[in-house]
Amino acid sequence: MTELGFNRYGKSAIRLVRVIRDGARHTVRDLTVAISLEGDFEAAHVAGDNAAVVATDTMKNTAYAFAREHLTGSIERFGHVLAHHFAAFPQVNRATVSIDEHRWVRIPTDDGPAPHAFLRSGDFVRTALIEAGTEGDVVTAGLRDLIVMKTARSAFRDFPRDELTTLPETDDRLMASRIAATWRYREEAGLDFDAAFDAIGATLLDVFAEHHSPSVQASIWIVGQAILERHPEVEEVTMTLPNLHHWLIDLTQFGQENEGEVFVPTTEPHGLIEATVRRS
Amino acid sequence: MTELGFNRYGKSAIRLVRVIRDGARHTVRDLTVAISLEGDFEAAHVAGDNAAVVATDTMKNTAYAFAREHLTGSIERFGHVLAHHFAAFPQVNRATVSIDEHRWVRIPTDDGPAPHAFLRSGDFVRTALIEAGTEGDVVTAGLRDLIVMKTARSAFRDFPRDELTTLPETDDRLMASRIAATWRYREEAGLDFDAAFDAIGATLLDVFAEHHSPSVQASIWIVGQAILERHPEVEEVTMTLPNLHHWLIDLTQFGQENEGEVFVPTTEPHGLIEATVRRS
Amino acid sequence: MTELGFNRYGKSAIRLVRVIRDGARHTVRDLTVAISLEGDFEAAHVAGDNAAVVATDTMKNTAYAFAREHLTGSIERFGHVLAHHFAAFPQVNRATVSIDEHRWVRIPTDDGPAPHAFLRSGDFVRTALIEAGTEGDVVTAGLRDLIVMKTARSAFRDFPRDELTTLPETDDRLMASRIAATWRYREEAGLDFDAAFDAIGATLLDVFAEHHSPSVQASIWIVGQAILERHPEVEEVTMTLPNLHHWLIDLTQFGQENEGEVFVPTTEPHGLIEATVRRS
Amino acid sequence: MTELGFNRYGKSAIRLVRVIRDGARHTVRDLTVAISLEGDFEAAHVAGDNAAVVATDTMKNTAYAFAREHLTGSIERFGHVLAHHFAAFPQVNRATVSIDEHRWVRIPTDDGPAPHAFLRSGDFVRTALIEAGTEGDVVTAGLRDLIVMKTARSAFRDFPRDELTTLPETDDRLMASRIAATWRYREEAGLDFDAAFDAIGATLLDVFAEHHSPSVQASIWIVGQAILERHPEVEEVTMTLPNLHHWLIDLTQFGQENEGEVFVPTTEPHGLIEATVRRS
Repeated sequence: MTELGFNRYGKSAIRLVRVIRDGARHTVRDLTVAISLEGDFEAAHVAGDNAAVVATDTMKNTAYAFAREHLTGSIERFGHVLAHHFAAFPQVNRATVSIDEHRWVRIPTDDGPAPHAFLRSGDFVRTALIEAGTEGDVVTAGLRDLIVMKTARSAFRDFPRDELTTLPETDDRLMASRIAATWRYREEAGLDFDAAFDAIGATLLDVFAEHHSPSVQASIWIVGQAILERHPEVEEVTMTLPNLHHWLIDLTQFGQENEGEVFVPTTEPHGLIEATVRRS
Repeated sequence: MTELGFNRYGKSAIRLVRVIRDGARHTVRDLTVAISLEGDFEAAHVAGDNAAVVATDTMKNTAYAFAREHLTGSIERFGHVLAHHFAAFPQVNRATVSIDEHRWVRIPTDDGPAPHAFLRSGDFVRTALIEAGTEGDVVTAGLRDLIVMKTARSAFRDFPRDELTTLPETDDRLMASRIAATWRYREEAGLDFDAAFDAIGATLLDVFAEHHSPSVQASIWIVGQAILERHPEVEEVTMTLPNLHHWLIDLTQFGQENEGEVFVPTTEPHGLIEATVRRS
Repeated sequence: MTELGFNRYGKSAIRLVRVIRDGARHTVRDLTVAISLEGDFEAAHVAGDNAAVVATDTMKNTAYAFAREHLTGSIERFGHVLAHHFAAFPQVNRATVSIDEHRWVRIPTDDGPAPHAFLRSGDFVRTALIEAGTEGDVVTAGLRDLIVMKTARSAFRDFPRDELTTLPETDDRLMASRIAATWRYREEAGLDFDAAFDAIGATLLDVFAEHHSPSVQASIWIVGQAILERHPEVEEVTMTLPNLHHWLIDLTQFGQENEGEVFVPTTEPHGLIEATVRRS
Repeated sequence: MTELGFNRYGKSAIRLVRVIRDGARHTVRDLTVAISLEGDFEAAHVAGDNAAVVATDTMKNTAYAFAREHLTGSIERFGHVLAHHFAAFPQVNRATVSIDEHRWVRIPTDDGPAPHAFLRSGDFVRTALIEAGTEGDVVTAGLRDLIVMKTARSAFRDFPRDELTTLPETDDRLMASRIAATWRYREEAGLDFDAAFDAIGATLLDVFAEHHSPSVQASIWIVGQAILERHPEVEEVTMTLPNLHHWLIDLTQFGQENEGEVFVPTTEPHGLIEATVRRS
């Protein structure tokens, strides 16, 4: 006999741009939205009965229709409205809305920041995950694709060695990563999500830049702990850090020294370290 | 106070090619391997103590060194050896090895299949996930990036309509997807993983082609159930199916009919349906 | 003073799928089309006068509208109709249509090849470039993203050495590439483009597999010459071959030999060799 | 009879990071370099004679070895040294060095810009192309992947209409593009390439933001002309602008107006407009 296990469905990669026209001064919001539902959808699977299956096309329409009225503040607020709309369907136990925000900044001109011309910042993508369901809401904010490098204060030593270990110990290496970080808020009522994002992001960067790293593992702990210390609204922080190795090139074969000057950056293979730091 | 939550680390994107030289007749194996460890790594995080941290560079070396001796059969067997090597470290509770196999096929020549020239098949990627730990082994096989289309026997109707629903009902639509499927084996001892993969993959394709689909949800159930029925070695099947919409183009504006002939294929947005079918 | 130099415009990435329904037996054609025009468009640039600017949106509509009637044979024939449609506009000197064809093959089932279910072949993309203009037509066919490997009959030796040369000479290396090849037909009237493509592609693979390669440069010459010899309809062949290096791993540090068995495949950096072979 | 036509070879995707350590204050340079040679390489093709074939591996070594000594200023200066090194080989008629620079900026901290921690800017990639050969040097600078949007001052009207034209005329549309621009310098001796790049890039952004666009074609002309006017060191400007359409969503079906507020951004299909503006 067979049975249905975990299942979920929805619409992904819903792209939408919202232009807010405050007279001649415009603002651009650019989102990629994903919506997914869990609940009582067994009949759709086992009996071909679509009576409960909100069409994913309708999810897309809903995102568009809600954007005009509700995308006026943070992506967390917009996601909250969307998630609760779908969570209110009786067959839904949990509605999850995931939003990526691509940031556009005003083009600098001779007359100051342009009122209606923008360039897309590629420094990172802001993310939010809003879950609404029978167990209450969970709001997780974050960022991804933040590419960073430390050229000092990074070491890796005193690790175990076996016959397959060739990595030398080092007190001074380049450490580079493409940071993905998420943090869950303790309680979202009344929170200014945009201000919180900016402050937490600033802490993340500040501590990443300043700290001495004995390993990527320790870096996650140090950054995560600082976020929890400085930002009481955060319940836990999860970071996923690829270790994007930069290998020092042997220039002695060409009669040169190379004391930490010329490196080959690589992406394959890479270390991958992830951990959660939380309040206890 | 803060504490460490879930954590895991390892090496990803280890690329390796193995050439097996049976006289003039060669065989190529082409893998991307990821290794990750869970266990007692708290000191690395909270105290900067790397005494337990097997370097991810050593993981890479181990994959290379083991490839020559142990990559002689299925990726599941190779992954098993790698996973158990790392699971044997006292600080490790679970070692997970994930392998993608990129298939190379012999180039057809006037003299038959070439003995030492190959082309890389882009039809799909075979995958395996081998977990070894204190709770025993789990072996999950699968494939991904198998792009398929049904031009008949696909419908979607009788779904709920609200004021945001515009999708028409249809008894005859194009259904296209990029299939990712995994299946967990009940017990791996003695199993011929290559034969199992070929047989299960054939069932998946056969049933996908033949069945009538009232929804993507139902398709997962029908294909999953068939795999469980025909392949007693499988305990459960999980499928993730994007619904890659093909929109019929309105050619009436150009004086033409278009009865299911010309479509725009799209990837943004797409439906995303996932479910597990298991034995009960 | 300033003036307008070379200019060109058009529509790219026009995706379209055509289903041919021959009773219950369907066939799928899947194209990505790009159309571009050269001609008398100076006023659009320098005076903001769009009177000559066929909208790129109209180009897209044209591709859709023509697909139903004219996409019944080879992409070269379809491209010919499209290119001549645009070349007939008086302001156009040259219309270029570039088509990628993504191949779908019938899914194998227990009852034979499926009549209306398909999987997308990832082995390569077939390409065609059709130029129509005041100087006559040019038809260039080809393929790209054909990933191949020779595990024997590839050498690279007797190249110049200077103080920055560290590459050892070798009589036996792995040679891998992602082939892009195009060939220009001498005269297209009456040519069976599909048969020609199949035959030329078969020659390319056959000779690539069989020949001894002293360098990638020589491989292009050998393959190109064979195509010209065996296929009188071809005027010239251009190939672009990245040299996707596979580095032998030093396993001696782990007490193992490695006689051409375990390699790291790489993509960065890669050699890049391109050449045209033509009739003289 | 067959003969060799145009041919060229080299090394692409040479990745290198250079850390300049001025005491505790570091600077990061991050380049992707491609080197290619044209010249007397016929024997390599037609006779398998590698006596003239500088190994592409040697090109890579040269880029590494030169980076330590010569990558101290602009990428144009570094490219010049590399190009002339290879152009000096007797068999070489032209050496081309193409460099992408990925910009890293100092992480902002509570103590000001970090001295040795950086984040990679994703706003655009700076490019340079240096050709050295028997006909003298050509230096072309530029940028790519600069994603921009105008939410006002963009129109497209008075274009020709035929029976396949459905695009409405508009006086107010969103215009978005991923700009690739290159400009050739008149004479490079003594030029401060970094200052020139910054100034020309500022002009490009300023004029893009400020101008009224009757078409993408006109935008290229207006921006190109401004660069030529303000920057006498530039001989010609070439721009390639995809028109990344943003379609206004019909919200009337949901009882809402949508006066330029909610759009679907798309990438497939896209317009593609390219033109050169030069001194006459």
